[in-house]
Amino acid sequence: MKKSIGAGTYAIPSPVWIVGTYDDEGKPNMMTAAWGGICCSKPPCIYVSLRKATYSHGSIMKRKAYTVSVPGEEHWKEADYAGRTSGRDTDKFKDTGLTPVRSDIVNAPYVAEYPLVLECKIKEIVELGLHTMFVGEIIDTKVDEDKLTGDRPDINKIKPIIFDMAKRGYNGVGSRIGDAFTMDKPSIK
Amino acid sequence: MKKSIGAGTYAIPSPVWIVGTYDDEGKPNMMTAAWGGICCSKPPCIYVSLRKATYSHGSIMKRKAYTVSVPGEEHWKEADYAGRTSGRDTDKFKDTGLTPVRSDIVNAPYVAEYPLVLECKIKEIVELGLHTMFVGEIIDTKVDEDKLTGDRPDINKIKPIIFDMAKRGYNGVGSRIGDAFTMDKPSIK
Repeated sequence: MKKSIGAGTYAIPSPVWIVGTYDDEGKPNMMTAAWGGICCSKPPCIYVSLRKATYSHGSIMKRKAYTVSVPGEEHWKEADYAGRTSGRDTDKFKDTGLTPVRSDIVNAPYVAEYPLVLECKIKEIVELGLHTMFVGEIIDTKVDEDKLTGDRPDINKIKPIIFDMAKRGYNGVGSRIGDAFTMDKPSIK
Repeated sequence: MKKSIGAGTYAIPSPVWIVGTYDDEGKPNMMTAAWGGICCSKPPCIYVSLRKATYSHGSIMKRKAYTVSVPGEEHWKEADYAGRTSGRDTDKFKDTGLTPVRSDIVNAPYVAEYPLVLECKIKEIVELGLHTMFVGEIIDTKVDEDKLTGDRPDINKIKPIIFDMAKRGYNGVGSRIGDAFTMDKPSIK
């Protein structure tokens, strides 16, 4: 039996991604976003949705670029910190001991210690209400070599974090359930 | 050491969500989308990105509504099937034995057997290239009562599926890593 719980943002899973930007003075900043996802395959596009009140929002508006650094689960405390502090008041890279690296192709920094990085240029800006959706075209992807299997990032080596809004917490990724697109016919019915 | 692997859609995690629509004749259809996410908190909004070639794309364009039904991991084979077949050629509800339920508030059906459902009306349509982003305002959320903890959906009871594009497979959700927003200061540095 289903129960109605009203309008809300309870879709799961949501990611935990670190958005990297430069402010007006060129200071690198990082902010955690759980509202984000891939939104086009050709050209490859990603989005992050940020509140207008955030410091990163203004930086993306000016620089028209950002990076997404994907933390592994061992980085969850840094990600939590970067989600509840503002670059307006503090230097989150210094506070966390993480290292900003200047992207060679977009005007934004990424997190050296995080295993998977996407470098993005703004393609569309969509105002939705409390949040602005920043759609970025993915210009390059960088992966720690020990987190690759063949030439592709390995989810079980990277161990990305899942945000659980309903219970205000973080979960890991579990084991593989099955292969995609391999069955000729459904074994269901 | 990071290796550049070029432009691609390798951000993780991605969801496995079932998009419910009615076609021109009112036949219920379901389609699996991995490009989706929450994109605004107020009003609560979600998006799914679909290729123009899909049957569901035309249905959403006409009906201006869709649902997102979130399958648990025991439903992964049905979700895989709904992602590699078209409602143009087959009746996916009949093929899978799943039950379409007419939403009482939006012009779309949802999957009775899936534990978490979001009912959406189109708010924005953004053309990005191969994919069209359908931003929907979430009008209501329905959850199986045994998948709630208090009045909120429980990720560890629902067990949503994670799509792994790089290795073409599905993963489950792992155990909880930690609480969000509770630390006064980072224990890092």
